[in-house]
Amino acid sequence: MPIITLTTDLGDKDIYQAALKGSILSLLPNVNIIDITHSVAAFNVQQAAFILKNSYHYFPKGTVHLIGIDTVYNAHTRYIAVSYKGHFFVGADNGIFCLMFGTEPDEIVELNIMQDLKFLHFPLADIFVKAACHLAQGGKLTEVGIPVSGTEKKMNLQPTVERNLIKGVVIYIDSFQNVITNITKDFFNKVQHGRRFTLYFKRNETITHLSWHYNEVPEGEKLCLFGISDHLEIAINKGNASGLLGLNLGDSVIIDFQ
Amino acid sequence: MPIITLTTDLGDKDIYQAALKGSILSLLPNVNIIDITHSVAAFNVQQAAFILKNSYHYFPKGTVHLIGIDTVYNAHTRYIAVSYKGHFFVGADNGIFCLMFGTEPDEIVELNIMQDLKFLHFPLADIFVKAACHLAQGGKLTEVGIPVSGTEKKMNLQPTVERNLIKGVVIYIDSFQNVITNITKDFFNKVQHGRRFTLYFKRNETITHLSWHYNEVPEGEKLCLFGISDHLEIAINKGNASGLLGLNLGDSVIIDFQ
Amino acid sequence: MPIITLTTDLGDKDIYQAALKGSILSLLPNVNIIDITHSVAAFNVQQAAFILKNSYHYFPKGTVHLIGIDTVYNAHTRYIAVSYKGHFFVGADNGIFCLMFGTEPDEIVELNIMQDLKFLHFPLADIFVKAACHLAQGGKLTEVGIPVSGTEKKMNLQPTVERNLIKGVVIYIDSFQNVITNITKDFFNKVQHGRRFTLYFKRNETITHLSWHYNEVPEGEKLCLFGISDHLEIAINKGNASGLLGLNLGDSVIIDFQ
Repeated sequence: MPIITLTTDLGDKDIYQAALKGSILSLLPNVNIIDITHSVAAFNVQQAAFILKNSYHYFPKGTVHLIGIDTVYNAHTRYIAVSYKGHFFVGADNGIFCLMFGTEPDEIVELNIMQDLKFLHFPLADIFVKAACHLAQGGKLTEVGIPVSGTEKKMNLQPTVERNLIKGVVIYIDSFQNVITNITKDFFNKVQHGRRFTLYFKRNETITHLSWHYNEVPEGEKLCLFGISDHLEIAINKGNASGLLGLNLGDSVIIDFQ
Repeated sequence: MPIITLTTDLGDKDIYQAALKGSILSLLPNVNIIDITHSVAAFNVQQAAFILKNSYHYFPKGTVHLIGIDTVYNAHTRYIAVSYKGHFFVGADNGIFCLMFGTEPDEIVELNIMQDLKFLHFPLADIFVKAACHLAQGGKLTEVGIPVSGTEKKMNLQPTVERNLIKGVVIYIDSFQNVITNITKDFFNKVQHGRRFTLYFKRNETITHLSWHYNEVPEGEKLCLFGISDHLEIAINKGNASGLLGLNLGDSVIIDFQ
Repeated sequence: MPIITLTTDLGDKDIYQAALKGSILSLLPNVNIIDITHSVAAFNVQQAAFILKNSYHYFPKGTVHLIGIDTVYNAHTRYIAVSYKGHFFVGADNGIFCLMFGTEPDEIVELNIMQDLKFLHFPLADIFVKAACHLAQGGKLTEVGIPVSGTEKKMNLQPTVERNLIKGVVIYIDSFQNVITNITKDFFNKVQHGRRFTLYFKRNETITHLSWHYNEVPEGEKLCLFGISDHLEIAINKGNASGLLGLNLGDSVIIDFQ
């Protein structure tokens, strides 16, 4: 059974999610619709990109990922479908593809299966669903759009390296209140070269050990680790790191290698 | 694969949703269960009616819509199943069918597949599911109940027309904090006759232009439009209209045509 | 189509739920994944046990129930799969099985399908899913693990009987703010022997009648009943019992039989 995933800011109390799912099932009655999340903050393309970038690869190749963030028609934003590493993605070309992949997708088409896009009230259900259902059944990208050569550029804030320092920022707080930074494991490893380090954040808080699991320190104590997202995370074993350490989105963290 | 949708106030943290879905799957293992929402305010039949009225038609004909709002047994409320425009609905006859359709369903039966309804603790799982699964497999309404002639009357507050004015009220605030009124596009069009208008609400706020999309005004500015629900909506482009404009459920809006 | 249910504290906004579902679908594309809940309070094994204990039996036999609570690797907690009354359960042996069943499962194996469990970042997706998918396809417990003889002991606080009194506590507040105690219907019946009773709680509040339905008292009035969970519940007809009566988790209730 084909799989279509949904990543949106539509919430879970209104008619929008149902309109979307009903539209899919009307075209493709035998499909497994999987909610990645509908709780992205409204219009937050960066947050949606972070979530989908870190979860799409768990799904089987051939999965179609529908992206419903900031999709209202405007004359400057194309509606596109792309393939990347064997997965399909359908959404508005508002920078999310660049934020997710950091590079161009393998193949890109601008959707051309409908005229008068500007009159669509709900492009997610009105046109994205049509493209997604076609792709989910094994259709080709070129059957739903015209090849185009690149996606809208939008870059995540990257960590920087100065002498012995990595300077990063907090980019996400998860439901457990773990604090996730923009420093990936790859980035960290390339700079570390086996050296010891001190992670600095907030009023002189420091961590000098990289944990593997949240429970390697006593309950209530702070730690850092590379979590499921492969990003450096600051956490408290069974505790609320964001609240207790006062760490919020955009806050700086510095790693000093000795 | 047959589709059963769920519209309830059961929330998403307790055992109730699982009990409902498990009961369905025990009778019909190959079924696509789609959550419309479980976040209807407790016992709020009007809100459930608004959501289901505006979303059921996105699903394929033959879909069975299970309604779990205000279903506790009482001697005066029948449990019914109805068909309307090719869809099936199962619920308590507490006025929700009248609120949704504004007219009588095409066919109505009072469920008679169980004795002693008054001893059911969870009619949703205990009897509605039995009827829904039967209908989802192509069964007839008359196989789950006895034909009856009408549903419980309950009317939404309708907008009124006085001379050049439409007087309406706010009936729903969505997750984006868009403010939705009881003035439908049909109603508006019948009164407008091409005339210009001023929409008045709260302390002298006005809007004089009908937008097609939320982004036709600069970010942070107010607008009105007919949204996905075909009801007149007051919104702020990428902003919280309910909060910033102080508009709440039950507040009045007036449209003055010149 | 095989059914796998999920009971976790992963929330609904992060990548974790998607990583879990994607992992399942990668192994078993035709499966019905049913969310029991992802809103268990973080690490709250008692709450997860209460929810799953009261809902698993609604699902068809053969269903696999995946439990994602407090699953981070530690040297003292085994990862196990068990069968009980025709259902399968996969989780960390942290006491949840004892809390749910009150007795030993019918069959227990310690998962041995992977080496080096201590390096897994997300055992839920990395190993539990592999066991669950194998069992969902009709595989045997002994094909995913080595038989072991018992699960970790952890007991719910039981109600006590002293002379004419049952002393219990509040163990759960549901979405409707109904207040659920640890006194089950069986326990109550064994002590009652047909006698009249007075239920005492908080500052001299009393209830002397056992209702069958929430609506047997006027709206806004308090009642007690055995609800869907078969536990004694204190409720207010269409009202917020926890808030209005000031009843919280851990509060005492006393039943005095005459």
